[in-house]
Amino acid sequence: MHVPVVIIGSGPSGLLLSHLLHIRGIASVILERKSRQHVEGRIRAGVLEMGTVGLMRKIGVDQRMNAEGILHDGIYISVDGKRHHINMKALTGGQTVMIYGQTELTKDLIAARLAHGGDIVFEAEDVSLQGIESDKPSVRYVKDGAEHQLSCDYIAACDGYHGVGRRTMPENRLKTFERVYPFGWLGVLAKAKPVADELIYASHARGFALCSMRSETVVRHYVQVPSEDKIEDWSDDRFWNELRTRLGPDDASLVNEGEVFEKSIAPLRSFVAEPMSHGRLFLAGDAAHIVPPTGAKGLNLAASDVHYLSEALIAKFCENDEQGLAQYSQKAIARVWKAERFSWWMTSMLHRFGDEDSFDGRVRRAELDYVLSSDAGKTTLAENYVGLPF
Amino acid sequence: MHVPVVIIGSGPSGLLLSHLLHIRGIASVILERKSRQHVEGRIRAGVLEMGTVGLMRKIGVDQRMNAEGILHDGIYISVDGKRHHINMKALTGGQTVMIYGQTELTKDLIAARLAHGGDIVFEAEDVSLQGIESDKPSVRYVKDGAEHQLSCDYIAACDGYHGVGRRTMPENRLKTFERVYPFGWLGVLAKAKPVADELIYASHARGFALCSMRSETVVRHYVQVPSEDKIEDWSDDRFWNELRTRLGPDDASLVNEGEVFEKSIAPLRSFVAEPMSHGRLFLAGDAAHIVPPTGAKGLNLAASDVHYLSEALIAKFCENDEQGLAQYSQKAIARVWKAERFSWWMTSMLHRFGDEDSFDGRVRRAELDYVLSSDAGKTTLAENYVGLPF
Repeated sequence: MHVPVVIIGSGPSGLLLSHLLHIRGIASVILERKSRQHVEGRIRAGVLEMGTVGLMRKIGVDQRMNAEGILHDGIYISVDGKRHHINMKALTGGQTVMIYGQTELTKDLIAARLAHGGDIVFEAEDVSLQGIESDKPSVRYVKDGAEHQLSCDYIAACDGYHGVGRRTMPENRLKTFERVYPFGWLGVLAKAKPVADELIYASHARGFALCSMRSETVVRHYVQVPSEDKIEDWSDDRFWNELRTRLGPDDASLVNEGEVFEKSIAPLRSFVAEPMSHGRLFLAGDAAHIVPPTGAKGLNLAASDVHYLSEALIAKFCENDEQGLAQYSQKAIARVWKAERFSWWMTSMLHRFGDEDSFDGRVRRAELDYVLSSDAGKTTLAENYVGLPF
Repeated sequence: MHVPVVIIGSGPSGLLLSHLLHIRGIASVILERKSRQHVEGRIRAGVLEMGTVGLMRKIGVDQRMNAEGILHDGIYISVDGKRHHINMKALTGGQTVMIYGQTELTKDLIAARLAHGGDIVFEAEDVSLQGIESDKPSVRYVKDGAEHQLSCDYIAACDGYHGVGRRTMPENRLKTFERVYPFGWLGVLAKAKPVADELIYASHARGFALCSMRSETVVRHYVQVPSEDKIEDWSDDRFWNELRTRLGPDDASLVNEGEVFEKSIAPLRSFVAEPMSHGRLFLAGDAAHIVPPTGAKGLNLAASDVHYLSEALIAKFCENDEQGLAQYSQKAIARVWKAERFSWWMTSMLHRFGDEDSFDGRVRRAELDYVLSSDAGKTTLAENYVGLPF
């Protein structure tokens, strides 16, 4: 069987790409290692840039998002218990973000893809890529014990950090860049009313905290924890107390406790692989880069990759113009590095690194003080948070 | 002999302080270890913030500065040979900087201080401070072989990094913060026309370069060099060639060579000591902090310290209000850290650190690309360069 584009991975980037190609008449098959249930159950980010929202609208998968998504005009930054407002809408000339969980977005994309007759092969095992340097690449996989092979024109690896896509690229072509942070985030999903009308990013002597939300009745809260901490170390009580402490006395009283139905610890990491393409293989999203979650850029960066990649594939298939594909990596990576920089910067300013009494520590604190005292500083934060233009 | 304020050091900060006190009728004596000729011959910075210009005007020592100083509305930033303009005046709502050498400013301040009957003891040796924790501090020194003692109410140490002021503070009271950069600046003074109408800060694969000026006929140029380099390694020819290379082909042709009459290599360093006061002793300028020269903040930061300190001393002597003195360190240090941050940031973005192919290196480059692509980013650079408000 031949298909123009094989997409590895049914996360948001693979699904978005498949939709974007579909509306221009280009067929694709998505191969997903996990089950649909698993994919739809993964807890991920929840802040959409308007560029991402725009892609969902473009493909017409926006009904539930429009109804349930919550527009936020700004964020709060709390420093040692004192809350400052970053009015992103005012600072960026009208731009906002939308609160809508990646989990929900993924469900919507899968449902719509299947409703349009899209081909998603869940539980596709042993996926391997052949001939990516030739003009006849192919993808082999095993489904229900039977081996299958898809010949194709292009392969899009939207299969995350651990996926087969990046690993198939020749090692000597690939440069990787990494930064590991000496802490993780303990994240909690709970049935409770949000602490405030917008997200609160809190920098406190005891560490970072974030009060986020999924809806008016479900909150997503995080506290910075040492990398070594285990989930067993954190009872619900300990978590709520720590969150209150880091918000400071004024905001602590606004915390609504509720049933905790998910709790996990995730490490923080920055990672970039260059280039994002080789021959007929193109990487998008986490397959090529990871950001720490502080700037809410992971999903949105995957969306911008997919925007560039879909435009390039459409130009090739509709106009036989290969320039976009040739320039994809360079174009995507420029935006990736800006988002990596922003995510590193937000993370650096707001977390405790244990070296607060060093030159670096004081400079980080001075950066935060400066940014919050300057309209231009606040605007740099706001315009990156709402998302730089594609 | 008793004098209200003894000032150690006749650099710009000590001289400015003496003048600012003088116009409010408060007497001071300046003790300077070096000769007048030496002090007036030192080559230093040359970019004045308007706050610094304002202090010169306030004390009426502005005639030559007004006549010979050159107002600059912006700076250029050249990246790999492509020049970008930062229009500081437009970005900050009208603020500019003035090009006027610290050497000239120092001459003006000394001449005016002496003309007003000010007391500057040059070549004061073996200066030592006594009783800084008491309310009767005093200063001893040797002049022409004879020992002298001045009793006073307050001591201002404007005596630079190697001065006696900071060294007199109890070690257990003092916290110091330091960052050493793995390179220095080779600086050249030459009789030549400036390369452009404003300063050019150049970031290039071979390293940083800066084309500055002292007047329409004297240029001050720098190139980043390895810390180990000796001045003998750098013939005039090698210097001019390297400068041209780092400016790129377009701007290289604008470089006017001329007689080099000063050439030296200076290390780059960030240093902060906290607190900036102890008992009756107050530190100002380089005695308490050093910045790398990239942001042109050294002299201007000394001026803002002196502004705060003079206000505090005037409040004490004129209104018996000690609050300003009690808060001096805290007030000055907040601005110091902002300038330290800015100087570190400018330095980081524009220099080569040898780790360009690492995560940190790429983030620095992304920062530069972002700043130059964003009005808000450019404004953060501009508003810090022209100087944050006192």
